[in-house]
Amino acid sequence: MRLASLREGPDGPLVKLSADGRRMARAGTTLQHALDDWDRWEPKLRHLVPDKPAGRLGAVLPRAFQFLDGSAYVNHVELVRRARGAEMPERFWTDPLMYQGCSTFLSPNAPIEGDATWGIDCEAEVAVITGPVPMGADEAEAAHAIRLVTILNDVSLRNLVPDELGKGFGFVQSKPPSALAPVAVTPDALPGWDGARLHGTMHVEVNGLALGRADAGHDMTFGFPALIAHAARTRALPAGTVIGSGTVSNRDPDGPGRPVADGGRGYSCIAEQRMVETILGGEARTPFLEVGDRVRIWMGDEVAPPFGVIDQKVVAAPG
Amino acid sequence: MRLASLREGPDGPLVKLSADGRRMARAGTTLQHALDDWDRWEPKLRHLVPDKPAGRLGAVLPRAFQFLDGSAYVNHVELVRRARGAEMPERFWTDPLMYQGCSTFLSPNAPIEGDATWGIDCEAEVAVITGPVPMGADEAEAAHAIRLVTILNDVSLRNLVPDELGKGFGFVQSKPPSALAPVAVTPDALPGWDGARLHGTMHVEVNGLALGRADAGHDMTFGFPALIAHAARTRALPAGTVIGSGTVSNRDPDGPGRPVADGGRGYSCIAEQRMVETILGGEARTPFLEVGDRVRIWMGDEVAPPFGVIDQKVVAAPG
Repeated sequence: MRLASLREGPDGPLVKLSADGRRMARAGTTLQHALDDWDRWEPKLRHLVPDKPAGRLGAVLPRAFQFLDGSAYVNHVELVRRARGAEMPERFWTDPLMYQGCSTFLSPNAPIEGDATWGIDCEAEVAVITGPVPMGADEAEAAHAIRLVTILNDVSLRNLVPDELGKGFGFVQSKPPSALAPVAVTPDALPGWDGARLHGTMHVEVNGLALGRADAGHDMTFGFPALIAHAARTRALPAGTVIGSGTVSNRDPDGPGRPVADGGRGYSCIAEQRMVETILGGEARTPFLEVGDRVRIWMGDEVAPPFGVIDQKVVAAPG
Repeated sequence: MRLASLREGPDGPLVKLSADGRRMARAGTTLQHALDDWDRWEPKLRHLVPDKPAGRLGAVLPRAFQFLDGSAYVNHVELVRRARGAEMPERFWTDPLMYQGCSTFLSPNAPIEGDATWGIDCEAEVAVITGPVPMGADEAEAAHAIRLVTILNDVSLRNLVPDELGKGFGFVQSKPPSALAPVAVTPDALPGWDGARLHGTMHVEVNGLALGRADAGHDMTFGFPALIAHAARTRALPAGTVIGSGTVSNRDPDGPGRPVADGGRGYSCIAEQRMVETILGGEARTPFLEVGDRVRIWMGDEVAPPFGVIDQKVVAAPG
């Protein structure tokens, strides 16, 4: 089952989409309300027949009550550290990195408002949307609470990161709202979903050129149930919590992944390409995003991508 | 005008309270919806006459879309550092500390579920609830967006903090949901509100003994407009954003504040009392909270506290 929210009002009316995404049926509620009472809503949604032309879609969940973003592709984390000459603590392979992110989401076609001096970057991630998760849930309970799978672009302002991390309280200004895909899909309708990870190609394109074609099912050290259980250790998670995978990142058998242009799987953010350039050649060559640049992110087949396409242009920040 | 939410359903019906808090009128919406369309709702709410006996109140905004918690009483930050022998960077006096917190809130009487090994602590804070704030807003625009003022208990798990800060991504497990007061008040109805800070006594009581009686209007280095502008530098804030002050903390002319028992204004969290004990006597003597302990937090007059009372007991975590 493929769900979306129309771009109307702050939360957007929930619709069910046909398999090809061309037709829809209105559910008469919002995604948040459906998730609040899923046992009642899920069978209703399953019975809906999408028979109207699809409308204009916004973020599938424009306002969530929590967004907890992991960094589950530890290869990415290790590259970040190597590029600045730091060792990665061994426990990062067993204890997930996670931060509390901004839980209001941009529409998939909304501009990224920024200033080129901020070092604007994309991060293509897989995300799940949960039902309620009790505090202290184990991985089996966590897996059971996964309602929907989608993707997002975790917009990151690289040049603001060092100052914020130096303050010790995590990201605020350096992690503005992410763009959420227009479509979320129930796990049963995703052949690549194995209960913990989504297998398939994460396409990232900058100005029409392929930046990344990583396999999201590879090299994901922590699956979603582990990330959810980590988030729920000391709190109950409300229905509609969004859990992000962190930047999808693959490694080669002999080191960091190669660029797409060199036959590799490339990168799901510009920073990773820059890190590999720094490690291999001593300096980063690929610039971050500038006003006018365009980022497109989708999974799988471009003709019928299961989550639709995130397609954003960078525009100058107000003021 | 004093607003509250009944403890019914996930968001709770909005009510307007009488000045003494004994009577209410139902608004026919939720606080979030009223904030989404404040220009339409504010006059309606102002005309309501609270004439029914007040019902059972939950958190005034049980589920917010964002909670950004400052650390505006820099005295508190300096003591944290001094207690562990570290210097505080000079820029902390000009660049606010802030983290992205858990934006679902406990009811004011909900138990704090925890494990004594976690080092459970309270933090009494002032908070404001905003209307929409555009990205890049300056302090004047930020001040204009403050809709309501309230207080909260930022529950903190001190023994989980060092590991999380060591990972560099800020607080997740060490900052479980805060408890939000039952009542929020419009600025015009708060004589102690000066447009940026709330003057008045923040009472914190542990097991019936006074821990703190700090003046929330003193020693607050950054006012709320500065905190909101900091939060909005790279993002628009949605209506209903909660901005926290950080632990209220006063200093004496000659150093850290003295305990209430010694005639001082005391502390708004146990950690600060422990830091002062460490600085003055070499070791912390006051224990963190244990199962069965009770914390009460209110401002002003205990007979008619403007935001009601946060009154929580510590219970054993599930599992």
